[in-house]
Amino acid sequence: MKKHDRKLKIGVMGSASGPQIQDPVAREKARKLGAECARRGYILINGACPGLPNDAVVSAKEHGGLTIGISPAFSEYEHTHEYLSPAGHDIIVFTGLGFMERDIINIRSSDAIVIIGGGIGTLNELTIAYDEGRPIGIITNSGGISNSVPFVIEGLCKRKIPPNMVFDDDPKKLLDKLEAVMREYPLPIHEDGRVRDNHLTRG
Amino acid sequence: MKKHDRKLKIGVMGSASGPQIQDPVAREKARKLGAECARRGYILINGACPGLPNDAVVSAKEHGGLTIGISPAFSEYEHTHEYLSPAGHDIIVFTGLGFMERDIINIRSSDAIVIIGGGIGTLNELTIAYDEGRPIGIITNSGGISNSVPFVIEGLCKRKIPPNMVFDDDPKKLLDKLEAVMREYPLPIHEDGRVRDNHLTRG
Amino acid sequence: MKKHDRKLKIGVMGSASGPQIQDPVAREKARKLGAECARRGYILINGACPGLPNDAVVSAKEHGGLTIGISPAFSEYEHTHEYLSPAGHDIIVFTGLGFMERDIINIRSSDAIVIIGGGIGTLNELTIAYDEGRPIGIITNSGGISNSVPFVIEGLCKRKIPPNMVFDDDPKKLLDKLEAVMREYPLPIHEDGRVRDNHLTRG
Amino acid sequence: MKKHDRKLKIGVMGSASGPQIQDPVAREKARKLGAECARRGYILINGACPGLPNDAVVSAKEHGGLTIGISPAFSEYEHTHEYLSPAGHDIIVFTGLGFMERDIINIRSSDAIVIIGGGIGTLNELTIAYDEGRPIGIITNSGGISNSVPFVIEGLCKRKIPPNMVFDDDPKKLLDKLEAVMREYPLPIHEDGRVRDNHLTRG
Repeated sequence: MKKHDRKLKIGVMGSASGPQIQDPVAREKARKLGAECARRGYILINGACPGLPNDAVVSAKEHGGLTIGISPAFSEYEHTHEYLSPAGHDIIVFTGLGFMERDIINIRSSDAIVIIGGGIGTLNELTIAYDEGRPIGIITNSGGISNSVPFVIEGLCKRKIPPNMVFDDDPKKLLDKLEAVMREYPLPIHEDGRVRDNHLTRG
Repeated sequence: MKKHDRKLKIGVMGSASGPQIQDPVAREKARKLGAECARRGYILINGACPGLPNDAVVSAKEHGGLTIGISPAFSEYEHTHEYLSPAGHDIIVFTGLGFMERDIINIRSSDAIVIIGGGIGTLNELTIAYDEGRPIGIITNSGGISNSVPFVIEGLCKRKIPPNMVFDDDPKKLLDKLEAVMREYPLPIHEDGRVRDNHLTRG
Repeated sequence: MKKHDRKLKIGVMGSASGPQIQDPVAREKARKLGAECARRGYILINGACPGLPNDAVVSAKEHGGLTIGISPAFSEYEHTHEYLSPAGHDIIVFTGLGFMERDIINIRSSDAIVIIGGGIGTLNELTIAYDEGRPIGIITNSGGISNSVPFVIEGLCKRKIPPNMVFDDDPKKLLDKLEAVMREYPLPIHEDGRVRDNHLTRG
Repeated sequence: MKKHDRKLKIGVMGSASGPQIQDPVAREKARKLGAECARRGYILINGACPGLPNDAVVSAKEHGGLTIGISPAFSEYEHTHEYLSPAGHDIIVFTGLGFMERDIINIRSSDAIVIIGGGIGTLNELTIAYDEGRPIGIITNSGGISNSVPFVIEGLCKRKIPPNMVFDDDPKKLLDKLEAVMREYPLPIHEDGRVRDNHLTRG
């Protein structure tokens, strides 16, 4: 799938607050996602935030996976006491960049991203990953924006679902699909999502 | 409205490509918005992109307004030859940061933002401005996401429309509403949208 | 000098704290620099910080110049109450990015930079402007690093003084020299300082 | 030394080009540094660049250490073919941010940094780490800026050597000293280097 022998890094993004993080179905999917990443030897990356992405990290750790958090905070103190965020990851990068730039680093650190549930912050990450051509997997039936991504992209934004975006309500099957599209479609070379040197367009 | 005597900076974001930029109704609204900003003595800021935001800049210039472009490119050459973007602004900041970080600077450079039409890139900017508590005006009936913002925020993301977000299909009336909410509601102090030092939450 | 008809933007960087900001000779040079920028119709940009760069802004304003500040703060409140920084500019961009990223935006916003006095923060800005190939003018005999730039670049770093870096202890003559090298040498196209598409090297 | 049980991350910065990367003494010190980091169980981070920092990574890998590269490139393709950079790390973060912002992320990702040799780019990283209060170890007698750091900070910039900056020409002894100051001095909480909430000052 990839020419180097480095482990695949999967970014897990989704609800960090709001009603979605209390939904037992979504939480179970998040835990299953984390466990499955660990079993496949993937590195699990998230925004070092609470909620569903942290459920995935905790589960990945329980199953022996390596986990990395990309924090908006500058320091462990700020991360814990001001952002009130969990810190159980194996490695935490304290970017000191706040939420919005953290989101960009978070996505670029990941070979592919998986979205589960999700509110405004997750929608921000979806638009970044979409515009930059990153492989995206959506865990459907997990609340928030998870069942409305095609409507947002096609219905509202008048853009197309790219061939390296996949959907499933089962985390295991979703990772299978994600692996398949990563084998099939070349990764973008440039931050505008180009895989070749065409002209830039953006909406 | 503001304690200092600096001119108000209005960021204009919206469709830079796609079918929306051909819509004569949307283009006329964009031109009307630019002209009205100029008449009120506002500085008009945009992402130095083509499309509706550029229609607003051209019109603002025709009416004597000061315009600033925040370019994703590093240089004028790259801006013109690689990003194929217009450069008629009075001042252009060549950030060299690409689209995504440019979007953040673009919004933070603006005292308030106005959205017209809009696809994925505009949706990215909406989520940033929303999360950071920036005053937002939506020009409705301008295509793209313009009529669906409440549905996206409340229906999909399960968040609330903030009191400093206003809607109108007439640019002049929208600016009136935007001025009113800027007088009434304090600007956020921190990049998480806080106007006071409460705890952080985000979804 | 430039193909477009936009006004030239001169970034003024230098001591914002420390003993250098009390030196009457350095302060007089800063004021003279600001006045001369205004007379030539340049836009004066600085980091919206106190000290010598602010002396230049105040003087430019007194002589009718347009001034822009690139603040590390997210908001006017944070700028004034936490960063304790002056806010007399015509336009202030509240980047919310902290000192280090602010420095990058500051430099990229400027067509050329002038350094006066300067401690660690200014040295950071010098290394950015040097690596990115920006035209640089050094006001010598203004304290801090101002007389040691060739030693730092050639003696310590084993790099060469680029042809678009000029030196003078008189702000007026320095701006003359800066204009000359901007006419003579092409601006870099890429953020690694390349004016053409050669291979990247960096130390 | 740290309250959590995560492995210590040591950032290695230094000459990536220029005459310093051919110096056999400096290269041997870089290899010794990498090996010693691996033996102590540290995670070794660098800018995913060639030269001395890569010598350290290669050696750390040979001794079983975990290594992370923070690349200026957006993609593996760009990293290899445009930046002509090595990619032997266990994990590479493709920031897509170019050299300058990469430098900031690089430093913030590291609990402490070690500087070996070094030209303009390394001087940029030194000023960031200094201003942000990061623990810094300098490998003296390794060429470039390595023997002149006190002169740059005290002699030119008129600032003080902070208590958490240490010097040694032996990598092993330097890491001992670095561990000691990390135990003794609190880490900064904020990106201006504050360990408490004092007012901001900067030069």
